[in-house]
Amino acid sequence: MRESKYDVMKLARKRWSPRAFSDEKIPMEEIRAVIEAATMAPSCFNEQPWRFVIFYEDDQVEKMKTFLSDNNRIWNRPVRSYILILRHNKFKYNGNDNKWAGFDTGAAWGMLSLEAERRGLITHAMAGFARKAVVQYLEFQEELTAITLVAIGTYGRVEDMEEPYKSQEHPNTRKSIDEVILDKRFED
Amino acid sequence: MRESKYDVMKLARKRWSPRAFSDEKIPMEEIRAVIEAATMAPSCFNEQPWRFVIFYEDDQVEKMKTFLSDNNRIWNRPVRSYILILRHNKFKYNGNDNKWAGFDTGAAWGMLSLEAERRGLITHAMAGFARKAVVQYLEFQEELTAITLVAIGTYGRVEDMEEPYKSQEHPNTRKSIDEVILDKRFED
Repeated sequence: MRESKYDVMKLARKRWSPRAFSDEKIPMEEIRAVIEAATMAPSCFNEQPWRFVIFYEDDQVEKMKTFLSDNNRIWNRPVRSYILILRHNKFKYNGNDNKWAGFDTGAAWGMLSLEAERRGLITHAMAGFARKAVVQYLEFQEELTAITLVAIGTYGRVEDMEEPYKSQEHPNTRKSIDEVILDKRFED
Repeated sequence: MRESKYDVMKLARKRWSPRAFSDEKIPMEEIRAVIEAATMAPSCFNEQPWRFVIFYEDDQVEKMKTFLSDNNRIWNRPVRSYILILRHNKFKYNGNDNKWAGFDTGAAWGMLSLEAERRGLITHAMAGFARKAVVQYLEFQEELTAITLVAIGTYGRVEDMEEPYKSQEHPNTRKSIDEVILDKRFED
């Protein structure tokens, strides 16, 4: 669990992005539940721009692995399910670009990741996959942008990992809050 | 608390975006704590692109209110503190554009909002403020983009609200998960 200066909720401190997945197949209902947590996020004009595609059947999961970057493909070998996260880029009420679609979808992802942690699941979001190819292959409507591919499952055995992943298998560090709080004020 | 089909964490179901703020001044340490929760979010290459500016002293808070849209300004009258959320748009390690900066900052905002809920605080994120003017005024470096302004405080009295805000003072609805899970699969 990450250290914190303040009393910060344990779920957030415990959550990290492991690579040591087991090959356990989690129930589909677990995946649907974490997505339901995601839908509780706030969004601009309540647009709820988040969209998800679940890859669960073995042939679908294996096909998705062919789109992974070489590095990711190695530690993804045991992964048995994925959630592709997309954003819908237009406001429904006027058809204009929704500049907050990525941000709001990120808030949904934050909640999804915590709900997974609460359920004893691990998640690892990856940018390293052939996004354009996946989008083309699945023929998404043009208003949708694929953002990240999330491996979801249960924790496996670090001992079975290859290097360099084995040595990297620990929560990464965080900037202190004083590095991310900018000292700005209105002068008048 | 929002209904859910699955057993979804209570914090996520309880959180919403009220407008009925009290005029209570919350301790600065509460604001710093919710920001620390935000820093626990995952991010692409662990870039941690989220940045925050706290507006807390009365003159700063009142000045910020002058930038709000007319609608927001009305219900913001009692608000005593704000957090401006920004994203840093460049990867540190190579200076390239970070396309995930908004999404990752959204994940941080999701955690911030839940930590606030856990502490009995309310948050309301607003897009309706003169973002460009605020950015110009505060002279942010050009790699920073202001995304949203979050009012943070404690719950006040609905009875004291003006219309139409009074009638809107309830959690808004959510799409069902089947509306946000897209039915896509690889065909081969």
